[in-house]
Amino acid sequence: MDSFLVGLIGSGIGPSLSPPLHEQEAVHHGLHYVYRLLDIDRVGGDVGELVRTARRFGYDGLNVTHPCKQAVIPYLDELSPDARMLGAVNTVVFDGERAIGHNTDWAGFAESFARGLPDAPTHRIVQLGAGGAGAAVAHALLTMGADQITVVDTDPARAPALTGELAARFGAGRARHAGPAGLPELLAEADGLVHATPTGMAHHPGMPLPAELLHPGLWVADIVYRPLETELLKQARALGCRTLDGGGMVVFQAVHAFRLFTGREPDAERMLAHLTDLVAV
Amino acid sequence: MDSFLVGLIGSGIGPSLSPPLHEQEAVHHGLHYVYRLLDIDRVGGDVGELVRTARRFGYDGLNVTHPCKQAVIPYLDELSPDARMLGAVNTVVFDGERAIGHNTDWAGFAESFARGLPDAPTHRIVQLGAGGAGAAVAHALLTMGADQITVVDTDPARAPALTGELAARFGAGRARHAGPAGLPELLAEADGLVHATPTGMAHHPGMPLPAELLHPGLWVADIVYRPLETELLKQARALGCRTLDGGGMVVFQAVHAFRLFTGREPDAERMLAHLTDLVAV
Repeated sequence: MDSFLVGLIGSGIGPSLSPPLHEQEAVHHGLHYVYRLLDIDRVGGDVGELVRTARRFGYDGLNVTHPCKQAVIPYLDELSPDARMLGAVNTVVFDGERAIGHNTDWAGFAESFARGLPDAPTHRIVQLGAGGAGAAVAHALLTMGADQITVVDTDPARAPALTGELAARFGAGRARHAGPAGLPELLAEADGLVHATPTGMAHHPGMPLPAELLHPGLWVADIVYRPLETELLKQARALGCRTLDGGGMVVFQAVHAFRLFTGREPDAERMLAHLTDLVAV
Repeated sequence: MDSFLVGLIGSGIGPSLSPPLHEQEAVHHGLHYVYRLLDIDRVGGDVGELVRTARRFGYDGLNVTHPCKQAVIPYLDELSPDARMLGAVNTVVFDGERAIGHNTDWAGFAESFARGLPDAPTHRIVQLGAGGAGAAVAHALLTMGADQITVVDTDPARAPALTGELAARFGAGRARHAGPAGLPELLAEADGLVHATPTGMAHHPGMPLPAELLHPGLWVADIVYRPLETELLKQARALGCRTLDGGGMVVFQAVHAFRLFTGREPDAERMLAHLTDLVAV
């Protein structure tokens, strides 16, 4: 019976649901599996030392989150094509003497979207939020064939920086940026709205945009998953919009990471059901 | 569902059976449990750094073996009475901010002896071997009420050093030492023989004393457990001696350590059966 030791490196990760999600799934595979939170503010040391020492102390791999997804890169021996393209790593696998960086965030969103909003039109998409999660989500949508995505962020520098990278990767016409003032016009013409900011989380309650900008012709996807039903999704459902909550992205990035760590095929539906239980507590 | 991360610190520990013994028992308790080998020759660093870093990286406790059982003591916050008395630690529990050292070796032998050789007479015992295991075994026998133990070691300094400590702890008449030349006379008058040297292990085959010194009036206990049936036990059984193999000591020290790490009560018989399977492979 194989055993696996995995950790999460990041800041403020105390509420992470990754330990129960991974450990419980491992039970179904007959694996000994422990997932530990290595909060950089508590464990100390720099990211390089954390990666090196985790390996010395028997870890098989790490998940990586804010603010370490870029900072970890210099300490890895190899990057997957996805991680290299996104310039961000959320999963490190210790493979013999090598530490290999992967990014499962974008594929997590892509699978969640394909599962939860099949056949949703993706000609024109509006995305709120140009941070790390927003970069993964926009990359996923364009990889899946969205024609055009317009990124809106309250920080005037962040949206252009992201859409510049996306345009370089996918072609100039496919990624644009706009300020919040452009939202009424953009949403009136859009097929879908993706929300990738923290607004709507338990400690950031509220709506990320005026409710009157929503309309029944939009699908609405949220990446917030605590709670699964955000104010945004509630209002959108009341209007009859198709919606996608943030649980799928969390679960599918975990599905990909679990597979990379163990070589086993996790049961995504079982992990989704478990996440729903965990969030409901 | 609780999760536990435990390790073993020592040298040459690759063949240790502690990982499967602990991890498998944990499954029966519904615990997520990973047991990692932290070989000091591979992991590097001194013992103090290993203890400190293991705690930083999410370990709940450590087992400690040769050559670290004494060396670890300065890095602990507290010692159990047993560990203080023996001057050796084989189990460290991280309890909040404190690292507490325990010794479960002697109690492991004591329980194994009580289970495997109940009512065996212990007026005069001859013990071969005055190393770390020998110190734990002799302590166990005298604690259990043996009248007198004579320790024999090929190293002329080691037996007197151990018996000096035992005499100080249990009284001058109860622990003596002798050279190998004294064995014929000592064994002729003894109730039992305890073997606590490496002879008889897979890579140290053979007998630790001339077979003709055994006689049917002796019980014979071996601490070697790979194989469980050593040449010594085979010859003793052929003569009709009551015997005790080394599996019990390994299992019962693990039982005690598992209980200290998890607060759960392990099933010793189940762990003994598992050890037998593991050794048979």
